[in-house]
Amino acid sequence: MAKGLQQLIDTMRPIGDLVVVAPEGPRSGMSSAITVTIPTRLQNISNEEGLKIYSCSGTPVDCVKLGLNVIFSESVPDLIVTGINHGTNASISVVYSGTMGAAIEGCINEIPSIGFSLCNHLPDADFSAVLPFVQRISKNVLEHGLPLGVCLNVNMPDTTPRGIKICRQASGRWTKEFVRHVDPHGHPYFWLTGNFKNDEPHADDTDEWALANDYIAIVPTKIDMTAYEAMKELETWDFDKE
Amino acid sequence: MAKGLQQLIDTMRPIGDLVVVAPEGPRSGMSSAITVTIPTRLQNISNEEGLKIYSCSGTPVDCVKLGLNVIFSESVPDLIVTGINHGTNASISVVYSGTMGAAIEGCINEIPSIGFSLCNHLPDADFSAVLPFVQRISKNVLEHGLPLGVCLNVNMPDTTPRGIKICRQASGRWTKEFVRHVDPHGHPYFWLTGNFKNDEPHADDTDEWALANDYIAIVPTKIDMTAYEAMKELETWDFDKE
Repeated sequence: MAKGLQQLIDTMRPIGDLVVVAPEGPRSGMSSAITVTIPTRLQNISNEEGLKIYSCSGTPVDCVKLGLNVIFSESVPDLIVTGINHGTNASISVVYSGTMGAAIEGCINEIPSIGFSLCNHLPDADFSAVLPFVQRISKNVLEHGLPLGVCLNVNMPDTTPRGIKICRQASGRWTKEFVRHVDPHGHPYFWLTGNFKNDEPHADDTDEWALANDYIAIVPTKIDMTAYEAMKELETWDFDKE
Repeated sequence: MAKGLQQLIDTMRPIGDLVVVAPEGPRSGMSSAITVTIPTRLQNISNEEGLKIYSCSGTPVDCVKLGLNVIFSESVPDLIVTGINHGTNASISVVYSGTMGAAIEGCINEIPSIGFSLCNHLPDADFSAVLPFVQRISKNVLEHGLPLGVCLNVNMPDTTPRGIKICRQASGRWTKEFVRHVDPHGHPYFWLTGNFKNDEPHADDTDEWALANDYIAIVPTKIDMTAYEAMKELETWDFDKE
């Protein structure tokens, strides 16, 4: 089990009964992918007082779907937490993140959901300084709930946090994304890598700014992707013109 | 090659020079997934005047990334079109769609991008009635551009469209999602299926309403997922409380 998941379990146990559904192995960059063309397996790994653990052959979103449809079926959890991911899911990385895919899936099903990520991708990353914040954020969500259609993208610095900032998603993208290698038969192949480019490094209301300044960044994240502000202009376009 | 992709190529050829990057096979439900843990292959399949075709071993988003980073590198395309998907990507399906994942990737890279889907998932779906609309929508985007951070999710009815509606993403979700089977060894496995539940079937400004009434639904779709309207309330929470 990944250290981030184990630490999340340990942190959440004092708060309530847990049902854990974890992918069988790492699922990096799975976004909201679902398994459609092959079936999915769900296996009960262990049961103890207040903690049931299952493994799932599918994606992070499959884990949430199987949890809600098969394990819970007649009831619903009070809260869904995902992660703690080893590595940032701030800014545009929210789009590619399986951690956030799973949180978004919880949100689609109208369950308060939080995705947690730490800005350290190493397997032995040190989560100790952020765990008290994970617990407090979770308790706040349990107490206040979240608006329908909104979940939380929580990214945490790889240090003792100075506090929490409520942020917007920074505008940015990954650039120079591939390293080209050539196999022994002379055929090229490509490794995805790249550098993150922040479009607005000086804006102090973004998740990237908060993390760069050692704050925990909470971005309320919505599942309605409609660009309402663009609708009026599109209505002026002439679609009848050949 | 899927019929929807072939028809999109035929429809776009009169408009400009095309570079096609297609996954090696179907990639259902891939969302914005990226290939991280294994390398990706890119193969040039054919070159003729105005039409270069490549196949890619990865996801729809990998196709766009490899196209922009490796094939284009020093220049950029004027427009990215994805699809035509066999099956709807309206309402919440935008989240799971590889067609829209690829369009969103184009948008992240500041290139006007459109995802096209037809409400018919069959391999021999009839695209003929919608192709003139695909061309007109594409020409409009080439002429007007799109706001930064906004792409188009275009879903088309499986009939002769009555016209085009600019819509918002309907609120809805998939329910009763799994069928349980048992293998010859007595172990259960699950097939993802389910029914779409529209939360607001009578709202006449949604993509689902437009499609149900035989209109093409265009939803301007944004990559900034921040729930700005939720930020103020979150700022009132007490995160210092144990």
